[in-house]
Amino acid sequence: MFLFLSGEISVSELQNDRLLRALLRQPVDRTPVWMMRQAGRYLPEYRATREQAGSFMDLCKAPDLACEVTLQPLERFPLDAAILFSDILTVPDAMGLGLYFSSGEGPRFERPLRDAKAVRALPLFDPEIELGYVMDAVRTIRKALNGRVPLIGFSGSPWTLATYMVEGGSTKNFALVKGMMYREPAVMHEFLGKLADSVALYLNAQIAAGAQAVMLFDTWGGVLSTQHYNEFSLDYMRQIISQLTTEADGRKVPVILFTKGGAQWLPQMADSGADALGVDWTIELSQARELVQDRVALQGNLDPCALYGTPESIREAVAAVLASYGKGNGHVFNLGHGIHPEIPPENAGAMIQAVQDLSPQYHR
Amino acid sequence: MFLFLSGEISVSELQNDRLLRALLRQPVDRTPVWMMRQAGRYLPEYRATREQAGSFMDLCKAPDLACEVTLQPLERFPLDAAILFSDILTVPDAMGLGLYFSSGEGPRFERPLRDAKAVRALPLFDPEIELGYVMDAVRTIRKALNGRVPLIGFSGSPWTLATYMVEGGSTKNFALVKGMMYREPAVMHEFLGKLADSVALYLNAQIAAGAQAVMLFDTWGGVLSTQHYNEFSLDYMRQIISQLTTEADGRKVPVILFTKGGAQWLPQMADSGADALGVDWTIELSQARELVQDRVALQGNLDPCALYGTPESIREAVAAVLASYGKGNGHVFNLGHGIHPEIPPENAGAMIQAVQDLSPQYHR
Repeated sequence: MFLFLSGEISVSELQNDRLLRALLRQPVDRTPVWMMRQAGRYLPEYRATREQAGSFMDLCKAPDLACEVTLQPLERFPLDAAILFSDILTVPDAMGLGLYFSSGEGPRFERPLRDAKAVRALPLFDPEIELGYVMDAVRTIRKALNGRVPLIGFSGSPWTLATYMVEGGSTKNFALVKGMMYREPAVMHEFLGKLADSVALYLNAQIAAGAQAVMLFDTWGGVLSTQHYNEFSLDYMRQIISQLTTEADGRKVPVILFTKGGAQWLPQMADSGADALGVDWTIELSQARELVQDRVALQGNLDPCALYGTPESIREAVAAVLASYGKGNGHVFNLGHGIHPEIPPENAGAMIQAVQDLSPQYHR
Repeated sequence: MFLFLSGEISVSELQNDRLLRALLRQPVDRTPVWMMRQAGRYLPEYRATREQAGSFMDLCKAPDLACEVTLQPLERFPLDAAILFSDILTVPDAMGLGLYFSSGEGPRFERPLRDAKAVRALPLFDPEIELGYVMDAVRTIRKALNGRVPLIGFSGSPWTLATYMVEGGSTKNFALVKGMMYREPAVMHEFLGKLADSVALYLNAQIAAGAQAVMLFDTWGGVLSTQHYNEFSLDYMRQIISQLTTEADGRKVPVILFTKGGAQWLPQMADSGADALGVDWTIELSQARELVQDRVALQGNLDPCALYGTPESIREAVAAVLASYGKGNGHVFNLGHGIHPEIPPENAGAMIQAVQDLSPQYHR
């Protein structure tokens, strides 16, 4: 059976909907599994395509190559989801800040944003135009996936985007962005409001293009105090979620919210409107589940460094995560953060195999 | 009145014991305040002494200069404690790993430790000999303080020392040290056991030399899973605490334990034998207090970036921290992490003044 999407391309019916079901806390036969950064440097085939493309951003901006790398991990491993190959910082790039990647230093902006005037001058943009390459990648991937597994779209959270936009890149102390927050809270709110509107437009465009679930990466929410997390990060993610398209292809589009280092805030995150919460490895899933009282699904939470272990220790670590979540619906297996570039692919394979072998008992 | 210490030097009676009382949850007239890294780069007078000394380690190893910089913040601000000027990594340096500081990259070791053989070869050492410069600094500072405020001694936690010793310096992913933990847990336990014994000897030598409270800095415990935190970090800190000298100068020597990023583990930390727990700014003190059920005192927890604000915003932020802890004994005001080098000294002064002005109401 074929469905029409956006009146443009026909897509096959979804053959593996474990991820979408688990994100909505519906029954599944086994725990679905995918990995953050599953299309990435730990795969030699990724490194080959990346070399062919040029820079990291060149790869993001070439829909055929972005599609190729998105599908690479699915060729190797029986994963239950694909995630769009892109970067969390495409929105500020579209706003004119000039995203680039310097080797060893991560993402940087040519024109960081430092004051109220720059906040006021931030342009709104049409994601179908300025981020058309992302939507083209989504459409290309959906076609290539042909219903095999669902495709996850994503963006950085407003606070996380703001940290990079103000600091101009990665930072240890968050001096500039927090300085702005402490000295000029009204300016910061105007800034984050603009970012929230843009991210909502962006994610809706991804959904219209074919994303079947979306994830908000709040990579740096965890550096805030509780009060500031609620006020400067969570509130804006809540605003985004309330603006998102809720259905596509006749199915609910689940929203996953992930604040790294945010274990202590899971109760308020569970009230954000998100269907599922990403959880890092600093909290037991049993405790996380108690904190959210089964109001949302949980995605996580193996320590990415567990993959430096042996096949045996990896299997034990997977068993511990599954046992910690326990029986019942609402668990998506994942790492607690992106897979590290030095991980041998076979170790990722051992993890995925262990989830397949060990999880069915929790769904009987 | 004069007391004799270690049969060597005479020391004046303590004139300001707010810190020691608060750490033991005894009544005080106002909340005591000190700052992690209060003797440091944000002070121009520190930078001048540092330049005179040469490298950071040269400064640590010159007792008179270490004493000078320890006292500098007390000359500027009405602080309630002095903290020994030293580094958390002196123990591995004494074990022969060759500690040095490369500008911009933080601490590094010339000879990192990478395997079971190196763990077995780790020497035990006599802190009075190999770390005699630290004990000399403690004695010199006590004499110079002349009872003005208590002196805090400290060390890195075994897990934190291990991360630097294995990685050879700072790290983002903790790949090597966690790889050892996942692949060779028995080796890691042998390693941490040796470090725990050495740290206990080291802290006891500091207490014998004159430290009136001691603090364990578990800077990197927060990168572990809950299970691994308990097994590879907290258990060894518990071992250390059980070996510490409990009294000096006829007073209890309080022990402070600080795991950065460990807010979710406060309940088990409260059972470690520590008298007080350091708390970073990612949790409300009201919630932290509930988690520890007044079994221990709490030290913290202003976001160090709050000091990038204005005098008014700093005062408000201090007020919020004090109000969050609320009435009653057992609060030591501090930042949630070390003061950043770029902070204007007058902003630190505004914080300290605000604690003095606003805290008495919580102690009536």
